[in-house]
Amino acid sequence: MRIAVLAGGVGGARFLRGLREAFPAAEVSVIGNTADDITLYGLRVCPDLDTVMYTLGGGVHEDQGWGRADETFAVQEELAAYAVQPQWFRLGDRDIATHVVRTQMLDAGYPLSAVTEALCARWKPGVRLLPMSDERVETHVVVDDPDAEGGRRAVHFQEYWVRMHAQPSAYAIVAVGAEQSRPAPGVVEALTSADVVLLPPSNPVVSIGTILAVPGIAAALREAAAPVVGVSPIVAGAPVRGYADKVLAAIGVESSAAAVAVHYGAREHGGLLDGWLVDTRDDAQVAAVRDAGITCRAVPLLMTDVATAAALARDAVDLASGLRR
Amino acid sequence: MRIAVLAGGVGGARFLRGLREAFPAAEVSVIGNTADDITLYGLRVCPDLDTVMYTLGGGVHEDQGWGRADETFAVQEELAAYAVQPQWFRLGDRDIATHVVRTQMLDAGYPLSAVTEALCARWKPGVRLLPMSDERVETHVVVDDPDAEGGRRAVHFQEYWVRMHAQPSAYAIVAVGAEQSRPAPGVVEALTSADVVLLPPSNPVVSIGTILAVPGIAAALREAAAPVVGVSPIVAGAPVRGYADKVLAAIGVESSAAAVAVHYGAREHGGLLDGWLVDTRDDAQVAAVRDAGITCRAVPLLMTDVATAAALARDAVDLASGLRR
Repeated sequence: MRIAVLAGGVGGARFLRGLREAFPAAEVSVIGNTADDITLYGLRVCPDLDTVMYTLGGGVHEDQGWGRADETFAVQEELAAYAVQPQWFRLGDRDIATHVVRTQMLDAGYPLSAVTEALCARWKPGVRLLPMSDERVETHVVVDDPDAEGGRRAVHFQEYWVRMHAQPSAYAIVAVGAEQSRPAPGVVEALTSADVVLLPPSNPVVSIGTILAVPGIAAALREAAAPVVGVSPIVAGAPVRGYADKVLAAIGVESSAAAVAVHYGAREHGGLLDGWLVDTRDDAQVAAVRDAGITCRAVPLLMTDVATAAALARDAVDLASGLRR
Repeated sequence: MRIAVLAGGVGGARFLRGLREAFPAAEVSVIGNTADDITLYGLRVCPDLDTVMYTLGGGVHEDQGWGRADETFAVQEELAAYAVQPQWFRLGDRDIATHVVRTQMLDAGYPLSAVTEALCARWKPGVRLLPMSDERVETHVVVDDPDAEGGRRAVHFQEYWVRMHAQPSAYAIVAVGAEQSRPAPGVVEALTSADVVLLPPSNPVVSIGTILAVPGIAAALREAAAPVVGVSPIVAGAPVRGYADKVLAAIGVESSAAAVAVHYGAREHGGLLDGWLVDTRDDAQVAAVRDAGITCRAVPLLMTDVATAAALARDAVDLASGLRR
């Protein structure tokens, strides 16, 4: 079985770990979001790709869900002593080594997809991890700024997420560079040759949304022979983690399991989804999703450990199996 | 009193710490060797500048004489796990932060002299630390290599020093790029305006020698109004630390206190030195140095702590005081 997965950070990574546990023989291709990437202190940081790589490779900080286990912060402390800005993003020492290797390879001319493959040669994540694009796509968020011309300014996604904790209202989410970008090698093929396409409970706007903003990816999803099944990132009206509600509001989508499904749309009506999983607590929303033309089931969505993540992955593949076209 | 000092790494740094202790009111300009600099994992490393900066700034690993106190090696361990080469040069986490800041500033277009000043804003070494040049000068060492065309090849100084421990015979020492380089801003002025010029017991070939290879520096030293006094890096026929004997052999100079003085030469005969300090154990060589036209004294040279280094600095300045032209 060939499975293609579009993935953001923590939610995507945990879902993938469950998927690998549930279907150890499956060939899994992961199309990772790179619009969160940022250059800090001259080092190229790819938070979502690394979260997937560390989680599947056994190196992740388990409680945190991202970053490295047994991490130390000597380099960051020294950068602070040098008064280097910014200090609102803290890089761990072990993590920094990844960025040093990546930056050196990028500077030497390797595309991000080749760099990611080289890093994965160490981590052996058991999936084929592909960046959505080798070109730079960068999510900017428009927020209030009384000092700026027009009263608003655009900040890098990480500044909005990490420094501002997504507290200011977001007026717009812009995937800068997306229009000029192309899918990385293997991305379209992974989607068109898959037996199942899955959307894990990643952020619909700044993770899945930015992947879909790369020209060719949404089209490949729409035209894929395989059924496309998604998992709601919203449970009982709130994001399982992160600030999906803030960025959904920016694009005019209500924070509910059904509203996100309707936002993606039914494939039979030109949208992206054949099936959608909502949490058992959102059972009352199943009908609304079905009304939109999307097959829907209510199952437990919370991934508290690998076993619950594997059960969720089985539910997603099981739903897809009933939807083969 | 204005003092200009040409300095390599550990010996130069310890001498400077003594000098600052002995003459706290002196304005000290340090012209640091940069021909040992190396780019590792995309990070620009300046071992001699950093040794001076850390030693005078209170951050040095005291026993080792270079690198940072309380150092950890998480990044290097991770680079090894990624199988990144080389692994014969180990960078500490705290030290890496310095190289990250430097690399980012160099990439942004700042010259090394401006970068060094910025780094020193944190360390406050109490001296003005100047790289010998803002241009890249790189010491290469020619060694045997049966696999190379002609049976020899040139390796970077650090590979010879750190990986090979200077064990292979060195056939030539080449300061690549020196001929095209210019002294960094302030270097010539520091020499011409000094009241005293000092050569600490740094390596005569790969530290002082490479500084002197930058066109204009040796001439400024020859023409300086101030007396020039050096301290022998050779005591009782052997280098106090490092492998000076190996690189002295490469340029045909015997490893003795007197031979190094003769190699530098007497200013009155077109050389560089007015005065020379040898260790009390080398008292028998004083006459030979004097015969070459260089004033010479035998004093204790070993810098076992700040007090002995300060005593040595006093001896050097004292010798210079008697040599005012």
